[in-house]
Amino acid sequence: MTETSAPIPSPEDARRVACVGAGVIGGGWVAHFLARGYDVRAWDPAPDAAARLRRLVDAAWPALEQLGLAPGASANRLTVTATLDEAVAEAQFVQESAPEKLDLKRNLLAELDAATPAGVVIASSTSGYPMTDMQTEAVTPGRLVVGHPFNPPYLIPLVEVVGGERTDPEAVRWAARFYEAAGKSVITLDREVPGFIANRLQEALWREALHMVASGEATVHDIDRSITEGPGLRWAIMGPMLTFALAGGEGGMAHMLDHFGPSLKSPWTRLAAPELDKALYDAVVAGCDDAADGRTIADLVAERDRGVIAVLRATGRLPGAGAT
Amino acid sequence: MTETSAPIPSPEDARRVACVGAGVIGGGWVAHFLARGYDVRAWDPAPDAAARLRRLVDAAWPALEQLGLAPGASANRLTVTATLDEAVAEAQFVQESAPEKLDLKRNLLAELDAATPAGVVIASSTSGYPMTDMQTEAVTPGRLVVGHPFNPPYLIPLVEVVGGERTDPEAVRWAARFYEAAGKSVITLDREVPGFIANRLQEALWREALHMVASGEATVHDIDRSITEGPGLRWAIMGPMLTFALAGGEGGMAHMLDHFGPSLKSPWTRLAAPELDKALYDAVVAGCDDAADGRTIADLVAERDRGVIAVLRATGRLPGAGAT
Repeated sequence: MTETSAPIPSPEDARRVACVGAGVIGGGWVAHFLARGYDVRAWDPAPDAAARLRRLVDAAWPALEQLGLAPGASANRLTVTATLDEAVAEAQFVQESAPEKLDLKRNLLAELDAATPAGVVIASSTSGYPMTDMQTEAVTPGRLVVGHPFNPPYLIPLVEVVGGERTDPEAVRWAARFYEAAGKSVITLDREVPGFIANRLQEALWREALHMVASGEATVHDIDRSITEGPGLRWAIMGPMLTFALAGGEGGMAHMLDHFGPSLKSPWTRLAAPELDKALYDAVVAGCDDAADGRTIADLVAERDRGVIAVLRATGRLPGAGAT
Repeated sequence: MTETSAPIPSPEDARRVACVGAGVIGGGWVAHFLARGYDVRAWDPAPDAAARLRRLVDAAWPALEQLGLAPGASANRLTVTATLDEAVAEAQFVQESAPEKLDLKRNLLAELDAATPAGVVIASSTSGYPMTDMQTEAVTPGRLVVGHPFNPPYLIPLVEVVGGERTDPEAVRWAARFYEAAGKSVITLDREVPGFIANRLQEALWREALHMVASGEATVHDIDRSITEGPGLRWAIMGPMLTFALAGGEGGMAHMLDHFGPSLKSPWTRLAAPELDKALYDAVVAGCDDAADGRTIADLVAERDRGVIAVLRATGRLPGAGAT
């Protein structure tokens, strides 16, 4: 750790970010931070890292310009460094996006910890490793957090933030505030679970899809169309829980569970269902009520319909002129 | 069956639809067919069925007007009949949307079969029962098909069409063409599988979500946000298979499977994974190539980005102005 390091800024005042790893995710983070007006130093051990990062940023930039750049944002505020040390030497936040290999992550996070100014938070883009398993080699593991993005990080808002057993809760809070200030949408988990939240949900769907391909039940193209023409249109607007609540009509989630609860026993997926006991039933109904936050079922239906129409219109997928 | 029935029109020329069942799905079908310019006769045994259908159609109509009605379409072209026989007597297509109970469906489909003019196709909105199990009581089961919609049927394009063991393949083809003419997006399955395609994928995600709520790993609200702020934004644009191919960077799905294949062994969901053997690997890679249909990874990235930006803009969810 550098002895002469400046005081840690507040999450909202940080301006200098280091990105380590120049793959699809690392490059996407670089593009995001540049577009949001940060100075970015990036490093990757691959010999063509600088050219690759430039290609990734160039490919993303038109989209980012359309979305609106932060004042002063420039693709020229990227410096690709020759060494890891140079990348992090003056960083106020570090985002690690190395390949998904546990040993590699362990050693790299220890190396980053050794080279980064004291107190600066270091986040890993890992898709599913608990930080507890990755922070084992670091001298000061308290500042190591998971900050898991979704591809592409410059467009998909979600970041899942969670610490490991040896992480300082203050580092988790700092990272969550930093990401929010950087224009991301944050979910902070209060416990470690492999795959976090969204990847567990995605992985369940992905595994069922692979089973269907393996058994010849559906083609890859059928699977993709079944989502983009079906539930995917709703999920851009409203998550799976509230979406299902609307299937219950005026009775909402309680009616839906009464009506479709028995289908949990049906062989509709290879995933075994939890017992829909009173505690789970009540938790789901109460959770939907909380999420609805005062909106009636009719309000939610109107909101979903407006959203789906906006998506259909924006993506040129209005239904055909129809029968007449 | 009526002896005096008119000849069956081609699927594109059908104009008179009967809808049986006035719940969320049945009402949604009524709204859809009315908006696409059909004459609709509807029946439901509930004493308040007419008022309920009127409410459902009235709630959907502003959305349908925004989307653009077919010429001549009118909410006044709905007739709620006093009996099932009156509803189907002159129908050129019948859509059954009764509650999801197997015995009820069996008996109702037999009753509809007896009352509907010979040769007219009768489709069930069932969420997951194979038609083979539902057509057991019908005298002429050859015309009975599954036509499974998604809520709300007046906005979500997808319909899954599949026959049972005793269904005439011509009835499946007729139904698929009819739905296409009625502005729907059709996937025809060539075999029966419980839950069809999209509900199997949804159900896997739903069960994993229920496990997470039951174990306290995530709240209902976390689960919904993890989708709407994350993968849900992509799934309105591109299905889970092509989406994952883009995570492989310039190497596409093959690189993605090399990189994330091992995570199939990870406890990221309670759903057991299939063996990623060479046959499955090849099927997934080839399926993605087929689905890409000549588009390069760069083309697909640009297409996804345009789509996600359109969705973010249309739904008022552009990322914040950012750091500066």
